[in-house]
Amino acid sequence: MIRGWVRTRRDSKAGLSFIAVDDGSCFASLQVVVNNSLANYEKEILRLTPGCSVEISGQIVASPAKGQAFEMQATEVVVKGCVDDPKTYPMAAKCHSIEYLREVAHLRPRTHLISAVARVRHTLAQAIHRFFHEKGYFWLSTPLITASDTEGAGEMFRVSTLDLENLPRTENGKIDFDKDFFGKEAFLTVSGQLNAEAYACALSKVYTFGPTFRAENSNTSRHLAEFWMVEPEVAFADLDDVAGLAEEMLKYLFKAVLNERADDLAFFAERIDKTVITRLQDFISKDFAQVDYTDAIKILQESKQFFENRVTWGIDLSSEHERYLAEEHFKAPVVVKNYPKEIKAFYMRLNDDKKTVAAMDVLAPGIGEIIGGAQREERLEVLDARLTAMGLKKEDYVWYRDLRRYGTVPHAGFGLGFERLIAYVTGMTNVRDLIPFPRTPRNVSF
Amino acid sequence: MIRGWVRTRRDSKAGLSFIAVDDGSCFASLQVVVNNSLANYEKEILRLTPGCSVEISGQIVASPAKGQAFEMQATEVVVKGCVDDPKTYPMAAKCHSIEYLREVAHLRPRTHLISAVARVRHTLAQAIHRFFHEKGYFWLSTPLITASDTEGAGEMFRVSTLDLENLPRTENGKIDFDKDFFGKEAFLTVSGQLNAEAYACALSKVYTFGPTFRAENSNTSRHLAEFWMVEPEVAFADLDDVAGLAEEMLKYLFKAVLNERADDLAFFAERIDKTVITRLQDFISKDFAQVDYTDAIKILQESKQFFENRVTWGIDLSSEHERYLAEEHFKAPVVVKNYPKEIKAFYMRLNDDKKTVAAMDVLAPGIGEIIGGAQREERLEVLDARLTAMGLKKEDYVWYRDLRRYGTVPHAGFGLGFERLIAYVTGMTNVRDLIPFPRTPRNVSF
Repeated sequence: MIRGWVRTRRDSKAGLSFIAVDDGSCFASLQVVVNNSLANYEKEILRLTPGCSVEISGQIVASPAKGQAFEMQATEVVVKGCVDDPKTYPMAAKCHSIEYLREVAHLRPRTHLISAVARVRHTLAQAIHRFFHEKGYFWLSTPLITASDTEGAGEMFRVSTLDLENLPRTENGKIDFDKDFFGKEAFLTVSGQLNAEAYACALSKVYTFGPTFRAENSNTSRHLAEFWMVEPEVAFADLDDVAGLAEEMLKYLFKAVLNERADDLAFFAERIDKTVITRLQDFISKDFAQVDYTDAIKILQESKQFFENRVTWGIDLSSEHERYLAEEHFKAPVVVKNYPKEIKAFYMRLNDDKKTVAAMDVLAPGIGEIIGGAQREERLEVLDARLTAMGLKKEDYVWYRDLRRYGTVPHAGFGLGFERLIAYVTGMTNVRDLIPFPRTPRNVSF
Repeated sequence: MIRGWVRTRRDSKAGLSFIAVDDGSCFASLQVVVNNSLANYEKEILRLTPGCSVEISGQIVASPAKGQAFEMQATEVVVKGCVDDPKTYPMAAKCHSIEYLREVAHLRPRTHLISAVARVRHTLAQAIHRFFHEKGYFWLSTPLITASDTEGAGEMFRVSTLDLENLPRTENGKIDFDKDFFGKEAFLTVSGQLNAEAYACALSKVYTFGPTFRAENSNTSRHLAEFWMVEPEVAFADLDDVAGLAEEMLKYLFKAVLNERADDLAFFAERIDKTVITRLQDFISKDFAQVDYTDAIKILQESKQFFENRVTWGIDLSSEHERYLAEEHFKAPVVVKNYPKEIKAFYMRLNDDKKTVAAMDVLAPGIGEIIGGAQREERLEVLDARLTAMGLKKEDYVWYRDLRRYGTVPHAGFGLGFERLIAYVTGMTNVRDLIPFPRTPRNVSF
């Protein structure tokens, strides 16, 4: 028996109907051949339209038709649900624009495109858990609601139960957050890293895989207000260790999706970007290049390439620089290491040159930065000096500093934006199509 | 080489030191035997205190000591990090109260207890993903920030970027949420179910595993403001199908944790609740009992038991009733089905008796309700009548109603509170100890 939804129906003059039925379990539809001898043929079968739900019994037989190995000869077709006014069905069988599909995010998983995205997303998520589990990492859920701000910057969403129409006030007229649910100001987290460090300093190897938030008012194809991140954190590890981990992880994930979702990848290659499969195969077959930031700057300066953003030591690399390095110069994924401390976060480990920190970005051909990571500053006095230099207060980092006071260890980790990973795998360019129900400025529908 | 943290150090008169080293990968410490011939024996080894981090090279040999199969003979001990003032080290080697450990949530994973919880939590999470993957379910991330309220009730956290000191106002003096990040009021979700239904009506079998939120100001051992839920949703399924799924899932998870975390379970059995292992074994070996709510009421009424809450048809079962059914009457896990519609949510399917809905609760001996689920109302006109009867507006459920307008199918699902599952497995009674960094009223530390 197959249970699913009608994608198309075609009737032959010989009294046969061919119904393509989807159940979402894979890319292909099952072709069902229905003979007009079925009792409900005239009344129901001939009225089936795309989107109707059906339960069909029959025999699976070899198919004479091209492009499919088998089909079903129906012995019974039960119609479970019709489509209310097929002419206005938002998913009627034709090609819809990606923008239109976002308007109907509750129905878009019924399309080839978005169901393929969902299956690839699932496959990558499973592979992430499997990869870390096999290597002895423990999955850790870090808190979503937080009073701290990992980056010392970054726009955050406030979380509150205060009645906005009647805000409680302190004696001196300020808003009294002591009356709020948590007794103080609270926000949605931008990263689980600091919390993950606490657990890495006890369990040695951990990873997070959960949602994070940015309240940036930027309407771009690369930003979501709510997105998923993978953040491994490893005790007794340095920058090179986690660069190696990033390489091993990405290759593992790409192998998994090539093996397990060949059907969906073939569709992306046909419709979205014909290079998706070959670039994953390329990625797997090549060793990552490694380059110091300082050398990368020289390479860029010595290239005869025109860049919109001028290249000098100290800049943050822009997308054009990153793509030149990965696509033109190294022609392979590149790990850029040891960035100027001025452009990086307080927790990154100061190198012996005192000018750079042990940070890394992994740049992938075709997309640019896909992973950002660092060795963490494990020396209390160096950390304290950095906090002070950056205008941050030691008192705000008491528990984080404790990790350096009690049995401190070298440790390192990185963050992978899950939707950007899916973008790389599918060739889809807008992250709004890579998460089921995207949240962006002025959009919290569904 | 072992890298980890010193749990204890003991010195013999013969010039040997015995150091128990933990790396968090399993319950047991590794005993390391250090000879006073090592160069740093006097200066460093004899000063090691609990919590110091070390890197030790040596040979693994069979151990003459009781309770361990092997030990390490150290050839080199590198001290990586000391403990700042061992006398005040918050995790000094003694038994700490569970309440105290919550005050130092960043260090508590260094204890036997909380590291065992973390490993069990990981093992259960992996098993959840594996179980559903093997059965052809797709993992789905549902949105955390939402404009809708699944239950038509339930206290929610507001998510906002408005400046509370300068709230924008509309012409008529109300707060102008059009100026907020999402252009309207937004909250943290209480369930991913409605969104999961949209994907089940396309991919057939999906599950969520992610955080959910409750802004209830209740300081109990069973409530967290932020907790993790597992919510499978299945198309073409009825209540009995998901009752069967719940049974299969729980047994799968308990088998996994018995197989994979025997070390940690032995510790919970010794220190926390001596029945933890046997009750999991019992749970696996027994068929779930199934009983209609109406029959369960009769059983309770006819029992000679005294209940604080009077038993009449129409009440919501309290914990004492649930435990009587599971522990005294059926002596097995019980699925109670078909509850009065008045005490259940609008989306649950109305039964033919028009008095009850196809809802279920799974009650486990020793803890009571562990899973709640339902068949969803797939008939548009019945759903609409329920919305109206409950004072909810059809306009607020446009997209949810669409799922019934376009190829509707019978479907069902359930929700499992992840921390309650861990409570059942470990015997721990307070969910604050079962999530790394708990969020509760007036507590958003770390």
